[in-house]
Formats: sequence, structure tokens, C-alpha cells
Amino acid sequence: MAMRKFNIQAPDKKIVPALQDKIDNLTKPKGSLGRLEELAVQIGTIQQTLSPILRTPQNIVFAADHGIVVEGVSFSAPEVTAQQIYNFLEGGGGINMFARQHHFILKVVDCGINADFGDLPGLIHRKIRKSTSNYLHEAAMSPAEMEQAIEIGAEMVRLAYQEGTNIISFGELGMANTSASSIWMSYFTGIPLKACVGAGSGLDSQGIAHKYQVLQQAMNNYRGNGSTTDILRWFGGFEMVAAVGAMLQAAELKMTVIIDGFIMTNCILAASKLYPEVLEYCIFGHQGDESGHRLVLEALHAKPLLHLNLRLGEGTGAICAYPIIESAIHMINEMRSFKEAAVTKYF
Amino acid sequence: MAMRKFNIQAPDKKIVPALQDKIDNLTKPKGSLGRLEELAVQIGTIQQTLSPILRTPQNIVFAADHGIVVEGVSFSAPEVTAQQIYNFLEGGGGINMFARQHHFILKVVDCGINADFGDLPGLIHRKIRKSTSNYLHEAAMSPAEMEQAIEIGAEMVRLAYQEGTNIISFGELGMANTSASSIWMSYFTGIPLKACVGAGSGLDSQGIAHKYQVLQQAMNNYRGNGSTTDILRWFGGFEMVAAVGAMLQAAELKMTVIIDGFIMTNCILAASKLYPEVLEYCIFGHQGDESGHRLVLEALHAKPLLHLNLRLGEGTGAICAYPIIESAIHMINEMRSFKEAAVTKYF
Repeated sequence: MAMRKFNIQAPDKKIVPALQDKIDNLTKPKGSLGRLEELAVQIGTIQQTLSPILRTPQNIVFAADHGIVVEGVSFSAPEVTAQQIYNFLEGGGGINMFARQHHFILKVVDCGINADFGDLPGLIHRKIRKSTSNYLHEAAMSPAEMEQAIEIGAEMVRLAYQEGTNIISFGELGMANTSASSIWMSYFTGIPLKACVGAGSGLDSQGIAHKYQVLQQAMNNYRGNGSTTDILRWFGGFEMVAAVGAMLQAAELKMTVIIDGFIMTNCILAASKLYPEVLEYCIFGHQGDESGHRLVLEALHAKPLLHLNLRLGEGTGAICAYPIIESAIHMINEMRSFKEAAVTKYF
Repeated sequence: MAMRKFNIQAPDKKIVPALQDKIDNLTKPKGSLGRLEELAVQIGTIQQTLSPILRTPQNIVFAADHGIVVEGVSFSAPEVTAQQIYNFLEGGGGINMFARQHHFILKVVDCGINADFGDLPGLIHRKIRKSTSNYLHEAAMSPAEMEQAIEIGAEMVRLAYQEGTNIISFGELGMANTSASSIWMSYFTGIPLKACVGAGSGLDSQGIAHKYQVLQQAMNNYRGNGSTTDILRWFGGFEMVAAVGAMLQAAELKMTVIIDGFIMTNCILAASKLYPEVLEYCIFGHQGDESGHRLVLEALHAKPLLHLNLRLGEGTGAICAYPIIESAIHMINEMRSFKEAAVTKYF
């Protein structure tokens, strides 16, 4: 079963010189706003305008449980996934504060949490199954379930698009999802698994060693066909595959995508294996504290905006980077040119 | 003539364990908000409360001209200082956008610009003299003028304090002020001048070589007594000495100070030579693109929040870092504890 196709085009670069010229004529030494200037060029190119805007930002948190958790690969108790859902819906989580601070719409999607929520208001109910299967022994999900997860992500982004959103970030919640991320990372970058495995939510060195052994065994036991989609479904979490679908749909709709931490970086890595052009729509929010994050960012030639040692996930690092992106847009739209301001050009 | 005294006390650290305990009980893996957690502890300690707040942030831009500019050390035309004042007052400069974005009060102070502004509204008129003297040949300012500049900075901060401000940043405008900063840096860190000199607003390698030669000659010609205050007055700009006074006054009043780029970093370096405790009130906003900035930050053991290759000055890098600081305060005040949220503690 092949994954549905997305129609992802790289943005047309013909507009870049005009964007650069506009920026070079603003009342500042040439190049003196550094990364902000690069961001303005990138978003202007995505939006094909010299006056890009950011509209109705939103962060979608995909949540699910992982069958592998029974192998003791996670520091956190498995019930935390479901408990945190209530916390998020009541506004008390990390992602809630940052979404409020920067006026993001926040949505939380149950893709496969091991709990019964009934028709709990505020939660978007798209449960595929109560957690994936344990990929130490079998594929985490079937091809049909993978397709379903991709579609959940894509559906959420189409909805956001209809709501007017043109900049979006994704986050995740799911105990043990750094494990699946490390395996994807190793397969898709060729970096040995050991360098891809870290502490997650708080393992000590012994815990990390155990996690590594379990994951290495899972990779040894893998008996799929080695294609990108097969590796996605064999090891992925429902929430991670949903994020991959969401990222691809966002690029198809020419949205700017802000990439969060270790897990979301591995999701865009996976997405880029299917459609390399997706990367042109991405801004990498931060380099986090999970040990493999720097390596996967380097493999993607990504230059993250923030280095704040965050490792919370949920989209928090992406949203924290948002005001920087906003500053870039203020710059290109509001700062006056040398001519308008009657200032002698600096160069 | 000695500089007036400031009464600067290091914040009492007894509150740190209680702050850390509060943070460790929020619904997130321990330590997973990285630098945000450190910021919350620092500001909570400055304010001596478990619920710190940020009130009425403001950025004060000190502006002045430098006599050394006639030696061709700056890429920018000297009239740009005055022209940019009009641009700032009309809201078209780099600093204006960021101040609007993050709701900073913005004040612009003429400490010694080589122009007649009459009673131009919006500008704070504290002109000491129309530019400093040329320190290639003589002291940039007299001891009395230095004292006056310190007092201008201190006065502005006392006014901000009365307005309710408890977090403040400073910026500067003055063609050739990277030159004075490089000399201060070399004297106060012991780093050879060559490593302290950079491109400023846009010099090429030939321009940098000339700038270095002029500044080295100025240091060779120096015939003062070698004290910190003497070096301040011999090479300083009025705007830079005003910033030193402002930083010291802010620490005396227990405000949090956000440090901007290369020039403001050298101002806090100078301030810390007089009162080392001032550093405990400082958050370093960013590491910029001016070549010496990284070195002076290292000399101060400072960990800047942003690395965005900014080199505009004016306070822009400090204000761009503000939302990160705000995120830290949202975290400690709004995020729920494990107990409140009924989430199984992660550790």
C-alpha cells in the first residue's frame, strides 16, 4: 500500500533579489539584522510577496501512546500521556502558556492514546487505536493505520488553512516517542543508533543503555522492506506519522512550518525523505537538549533559531521562536527605507 | 574627580532553593525548559519572590557623536547619527518596530549629537557637547563631562523606576562607537586590541586595518592614569558613559537589565569593573555579528540568549530576546504543578 501523494512545489526563487533589495534599503547597516533578514526572504519567497504576513498562527499537538513503552525505554509513567491531555485542555501545560503568550490557536488531537476520553470537549478525537504495537516484536502499525495517521495530520492542516492560518507548528505528546524518533533518525541519516539515543524525559546513563539495547534489538528484528514508508509504519508513533502528514499537507498549501524539537525534527526528516521540497517551507525553531537533536539538525543542514536547552516538546520550542519570526516580518513591512527616512545610505 | 558612588548589593540567594523547587514541580520533565528555568530563578532572586513579574519594560537609546570619526574609523557618514534621530522619533527605525512588537516604552536621549535639534518634541535633550573630542590626541571628555554623562544615564533610570519599570534595556546610536568599545574592551579584558576591532557598520578588511591602526595609535598616545574611570572618559562616547551610569543605577534599584550588543556589552564590562555585583542583574540578550562580541561575552562568562547575527545596536538584540524572558515568567507563574494537575511526577 503506497502513501497518498502530495503535490509539493518548491517556492519560485525569482522573487529573491527583489526581497533582498528591499531589505538592503532599510535604515540599518547592510546585513545588520542577520537571521531576521534571512527569515524575511524565506517567508517572502514562500508567500511570493515583498510584504509577507503571518496570519492566525496555530500549534497542533498530536498525542498517542507507544507499544514499546512496556520495555522500560521511557522514564515517564505511561499514564502521563493521558494525564497531560487533561492538563493541556485545562490550560496548565507548558504549551498552553506559550500559545497564550504568542496568540497561537492550540489544538490537541488524540491519535491513539491508551485511555477512554468519551466525548471530552476540547480534545479532537481521532483515535486510531489505543497505542501502537510493540515494535520490538512486530510493526507498530499496519499500512492502513499509517495511511489513517497521515490523513489525520493532513486533515488538521486543511482545517487550519480554512481558518486562515499561514504559519503553523506541530508538537507531540506520547511517552516513549524519543525512542521511535531515534530509530527513524538512524535509518534516515545513517548515523549509528547509539548517537541517536538520549535521555528523553530523564533517563540516567543506565536507563539510556537499556533503551539503546532495546532499540538496537528492535532494529535487528526488523523484517520489513526498508522503504521510507515501511520504516515510518514499523517504528512510528501514530502522533509522529500524523505530524509527517501534517507537514506535507502544510507544504502543499504553501504554509510556513515551524519545526519544534527532537521528535518533530525527525518527523520533518522523514517527510523530506518522501518530498525533499518540504524543507523549503520550514523554519527550525530551536536546538534542544536531547543529545541527538544537534546531529539530526546538522544532517538536515538546518540552522535553528534558538539554543535554549529546551526538551519539553509539545511545540514549545517552535512557539518560543515565533516572536523572532514575527520580528523579521515587522522589519520588512514597517522599517523605513533610507529614501523614506532621508538617511544617508550606510553603504 | 571621583565618580559618584552607587549602592549596589548582590541579590540575596537564600530564595534560590525555593524557586528551584517550585520549577521542579511544574508539569514537565525536570530541567526540560532549560534556559527558561535559569531565567526564572535569576529574576525571582532579583525580585525576591516566587512569583516574579515583568513590569513596564523600556528601552532607552543614548545617542552622541564621537570626535574620532574624523579619522575615518567608521563606515557610516557622521551625519547619520542626527538623521537616525528623526527616523526614530517618526517610528521608522529598527528599534521602533521591536519596541512596538514587545510593548516597550522607547526613549531617545541626545547626550551629545553634533546637530541642533532646537526643542524637537520626543527627543530627550541632555546634550553635553556636540560630540566628544578626538581621543587620538586628547581625552574624549573632561572628568566633569564624564560625571554629567553618568548622571544622565542614572536620571533616566530613576525616571523609569518611577514609571513602574522593573526590566530595562539600553541601546546606543553614534557613528564610530564600536571604536571606543573596542578600546574599552582591550583595556578591561586584556585581550589584544586587534581581536577587539571589527567591521562596525560595514568596513571592509582595508577599513578594519585602518581603524585598528588609528585605535592602536590612540592607545599609544594615552597619557592618563590608567584607572577605570580615566579610561572611560578618555575614550568613551557620551552615550556609552551614560549607559554605564544607567546600568549602575538600574542595579542599585534592583531592576533586571537586558544587555544588547557589542557596545552595550562593553558598557556593562566597564560598569562591572567599578561594581562587579552589577552583573547579577543582567541578562545578555544576544551574541551579535561584530567580531569582538563573542570574546567580550566569554570574558564576562555571559551566556547570551540569542545568536542571530544581529549587529544593529539601538537595543534591538535586547528587545528581541525579551519574549524569551517573558516565557520564563509565564512558566513560573502559570504552569501548573504535578499536584495541581494530577499528573504523575516525571521523576
